[in-house]
Amino acid sequence: MTAPLGPLGPLGPLGPLGPLRSVLFTPADKPDRARRIAETQPDCLVLDLEDGVGIADKASARTALAGFAQALAEHGRPTVVLVRVNAIDTEWFADDMAAVAAISFDGVVVPKVERVTDAATVRSHLGASPAALLLAGIESAAGVATCEDTLGRGSFDACYFGAEDFITDMGGVRTPAGTEVLYARSRVALAARLGRIPAVDQIVSSFRDDDAFRADARLGREIGFSGKLCIHPAQVALAHEIYRATEAELIRARHIVAAFESRDGHGGVVSYDGQMIDAPMLTRAKDLLARNGE
Amino acid sequence: MTAPLGPLGPLGPLGPLGPLRSVLFTPADKPDRARRIAETQPDCLVLDLEDGVGIADKASARTALAGFAQALAEHGRPTVVLVRVNAIDTEWFADDMAAVAAISFDGVVVPKVERVTDAATVRSHLGASPAALLLAGIESAAGVATCEDTLGRGSFDACYFGAEDFITDMGGVRTPAGTEVLYARSRVALAARLGRIPAVDQIVSSFRDDDAFRADARLGREIGFSGKLCIHPAQVALAHEIYRATEAELIRARHIVAAFESRDGHGGVVSYDGQMIDAPMLTRAKDLLARNGE
Amino acid sequence: MTAPLGPLGPLGPLGPLGPLRSVLFTPADKPDRARRIAETQPDCLVLDLEDGVGIADKASARTALAGFAQALAEHGRPTVVLVRVNAIDTEWFADDMAAVAAISFDGVVVPKVERVTDAATVRSHLGASPAALLLAGIESAAGVATCEDTLGRGSFDACYFGAEDFITDMGGVRTPAGTEVLYARSRVALAARLGRIPAVDQIVSSFRDDDAFRADARLGREIGFSGKLCIHPAQVALAHEIYRATEAELIRARHIVAAFESRDGHGGVVSYDGQMIDAPMLTRAKDLLARNGE
Repeated sequence: MTAPLGPLGPLGPLGPLGPLRSVLFTPADKPDRARRIAETQPDCLVLDLEDGVGIADKASARTALAGFAQALAEHGRPTVVLVRVNAIDTEWFADDMAAVAAISFDGVVVPKVERVTDAATVRSHLGASPAALLLAGIESAAGVATCEDTLGRGSFDACYFGAEDFITDMGGVRTPAGTEVLYARSRVALAARLGRIPAVDQIVSSFRDDDAFRADARLGREIGFSGKLCIHPAQVALAHEIYRATEAELIRARHIVAAFESRDGHGGVVSYDGQMIDAPMLTRAKDLLARNGE
Repeated sequence: MTAPLGPLGPLGPLGPLGPLRSVLFTPADKPDRARRIAETQPDCLVLDLEDGVGIADKASARTALAGFAQALAEHGRPTVVLVRVNAIDTEWFADDMAAVAAISFDGVVVPKVERVTDAATVRSHLGASPAALLLAGIESAAGVATCEDTLGRGSFDACYFGAEDFITDMGGVRTPAGTEVLYARSRVALAARLGRIPAVDQIVSSFRDDDAFRADARLGREIGFSGKLCIHPAQVALAHEIYRATEAELIRARHIVAAFESRDGHGGVVSYDGQMIDAPMLTRAKDLLARNGE
Repeated sequence: MTAPLGPLGPLGPLGPLGPLRSVLFTPADKPDRARRIAETQPDCLVLDLEDGVGIADKASARTALAGFAQALAEHGRPTVVLVRVNAIDTEWFADDMAAVAAISFDGVVVPKVERVTDAATVRSHLGASPAALLLAGIESAAGVATCEDTLGRGSFDACYFGAEDFITDMGGVRTPAGTEVLYARSRVALAARLGRIPAVDQIVSSFRDDDAFRADARLGREIGFSGKLCIHPAQVALAHEIYRATEAELIRARHIVAAFESRDGHGGVVSYDGQMIDAPMLTRAKDLLARNGE
C-alpha cells in the first residue's frame, strides 16, 4: 500500500452481491444442467466461458448463454447470475463481452486480474450495463503481487482466490492441506478486506470427497473468506454447511452476548467455558449471530 | 518498504523495555489483583483501560490507576508498568492520556496502530513525560497492512500482534493451531525486526489449558517473537518457561560453541549430533547462551 | 511492487543455469572431496568461501580454488560450478572476487543480498568475466523485505532462500516442520517467479535423516521451488528423487493430456479419478511431462 490506511470501520453488511457462501461455476454451454443447479440454489451462479469451455467451443458457448438464461428462468434462477469471460489478453475477450452485454446478467467474473486498469477495461466493454457487478479472479503470481492495488480501489465488488491457476503459474503442486498456497490465500483475503469487498475461497477439485471440501472450507472461513468456489452442484450444500454457524457456535455466541449484556457496560472481560472473553470476541459473537439471522 | 534496506546489524541487546518474555494485561480497575500479580513477576505489566474495561467503567478505571500504582508499590512492582489507553479514534483517548500523564508509569500501550502518525499523536498528549516508552498494538487488517511503515520509523519501542482483534476485523475464526493468522503473525514479526524493535506474540484465551499455551508460545518463539501476551497471571510462568532455553538446548549450544572454539577459526562447518553446523547456527547458539545469562 | 505488473507469460524453459534440482555446497578448501562430488553429479556445485570456511582459512580457501577446479576436471566436473563469495560488506569480499575472476567458473553466489545495487557491485568486480551467472542468497530479514526489488530487475539468474541465516537474523528457532519460515519461504518463491528466475529451496541440516529431507523438499517443490540446497553429497540423489516426477504422477499427467486431446478442443473440463480437471491442471500436467523429458 503506498498510502497509510486509516481505520476500515467494522465489517459492513453484505455487499451488492449478497451472501457469497457458494459461488458455483458451470460451463456456459451446458444449459441442460439448469435444473440440477436450480435445485442446489447456490448464492451465486457463474456461467463459465473461460476454463470450463474448450477452445473449440468458445463461440458456441457464447451463443448458448441466452438459452441457459431461459432454462434458469424456467427452473428457478439463483439470486445472482454472473458470466465469467476469458481473460482480457485473450483473443476471445471482446466477443465474450459483446455476448454478455447483449443479455441481462448481474455482472461479470474477470479471471486473472493483474493490473489496476483491468476493471476499467471490462467496464468499457459493458456499454449499456454500466451497473454490472464485477468479481475479480486473483489467480496468478502477478495477480497476487498486485492484489492490494487491484482490489483496493473500489473497482471490483468481490474477488476470489484461484489456487489451481496460481500454483500452476508458480510451477508448484497443489495438495489437500494447501500449505503451498497459505501465503497467497491469506494475502488475498487481507487485500480484499482492505478493499472492503468479500473474498471467495479456492476450489476443491476432488468433488466426491466431502470431508476434504469441509476441511478446506473451514480453513477458508477461519482466514476470513466469505464463501467457497464450487465446481460441482454437490459442493453447494457443503459450502452452506460450513459457512452456516453450528448450533454449538450459536449457543456459545448467545451466552457471550448475554453475559456482557447482564453487566450493562461494567466489566470488560468475562470468563466463559475456560476462556477469557473480551471486546473482540464479543464482536465476533455478535457478527456470527447477525450473519445467521439473529 | 519504499526504500531499499541496508544490513540491519546483529540482533542487539535488550531494548529500553528490557526482556519481554511475559507482558501481562490486567484491568486497570482491579487493584485488588496487585498482590497476585506481584507474585508472578511478569517482565512487563499492562494496566488496561481498553478492552479489559467495560464502557460503563472507563472513567472509574482512570481514577483507579493511582490506587493500582500504590498497591503495586506495596506488593512488589514489576520492572516495567505500562498503561493501555483506548484507541486514538475513540471518545476515551484524550481523557485516558490525561490520566496517564498525571501518574508516573513507564509508558503507554497504543492499541490498533494503523497510521504512521499514531506515535506522534500519542506523544503530543504526553506533555511532561516525553521519554515514556511506547508499545504498539498491531491488531487489525489495516494495522497489518501498514506495519512495515508504522513500526519502521523508530517511533515505537516494541509492538505486539493481537490475533483476536485481527481475526475479528477479518471476519474469520480463531483456532488453537492458528493457521488462519500465520501470515499476519509472521509479517508483523518481520516488520518489527526491520524496525529493530521486539515483538510480543498473541494471547491464548484458554487460560486453563497450559499445553495450548505452551504450543502456541513455542511457535511464536520459533518465528522470532520476544515473548507472549498474557491474559491471566498463571500464564506468566508458562511464558518464562518457553522463552527460557531448556537444559538440552543449553547443552547443545555450549557444545556447538566449544566445537568451533577448539578449531580456532579453522573449519567453517562442524558435524554435531547428525547436523551440519555452520555460521548461522553458531550465531544462534551464542545468542541463546547470551539471552540465558551465559 | 511499485509498478503494476502485466502478465508474466508462461513458465519459460530452463534458465541459463540449467536445471537446479540440486545445488551442492562444499567448502572451497576441501578439494579432496572432488571425487565424491563428481560421483553424485549435482546439477550445480558451489565452492564455498563463506560460511563453509572458517575465518582463519579465508585466504587459503581462495588459494585452493584453482586446485579444486583441477580436481573436478579430473574426476568429472558438474555442468555448473559456482563460487560463493563472502558478503559484500565483509572484509573478505574484494579478495574473494579477485580470486574468482582469475579462474574460469560459471558464476558467483552472492550471500545475504539486501540491496538493489548488490548485483551491480558484484559485476563491477568481475572485470573480464561480465557474462558470469549470479545466484542471489535471500537469507536475512532485510533480504526478505527487499526481495521483490532485488530479484525483480533481471540482475540475478537465480536465487535461494536461506532459512538458517534468516531465522538467526529473526532471533527465532528452526524446526523440521518449518512453520516459522513459511511466510518468508513463500514470499521469496513468489518474488523469484515475478523476477522470472528459478528459486532454490532451504537446506536440511540433518544430513542423515533422509525422510526429513524428502518431506522438506516435497513442500518446497509444492510451493514452486526449482530444487534444493544440499549440504552433503548424499542429499543430491534425494533432491533429484523429489524433483523428478513419480511414476504415478507421470501416468496421471499422461492420462489428463490424453483426455483433453481426445476431445480436440471441445469441453473445458474432464472428470478424472474423482477430480474435476480444467485448464490450469492440464497446463500443470503438460509442464510436468516436459520437465521430465516427455
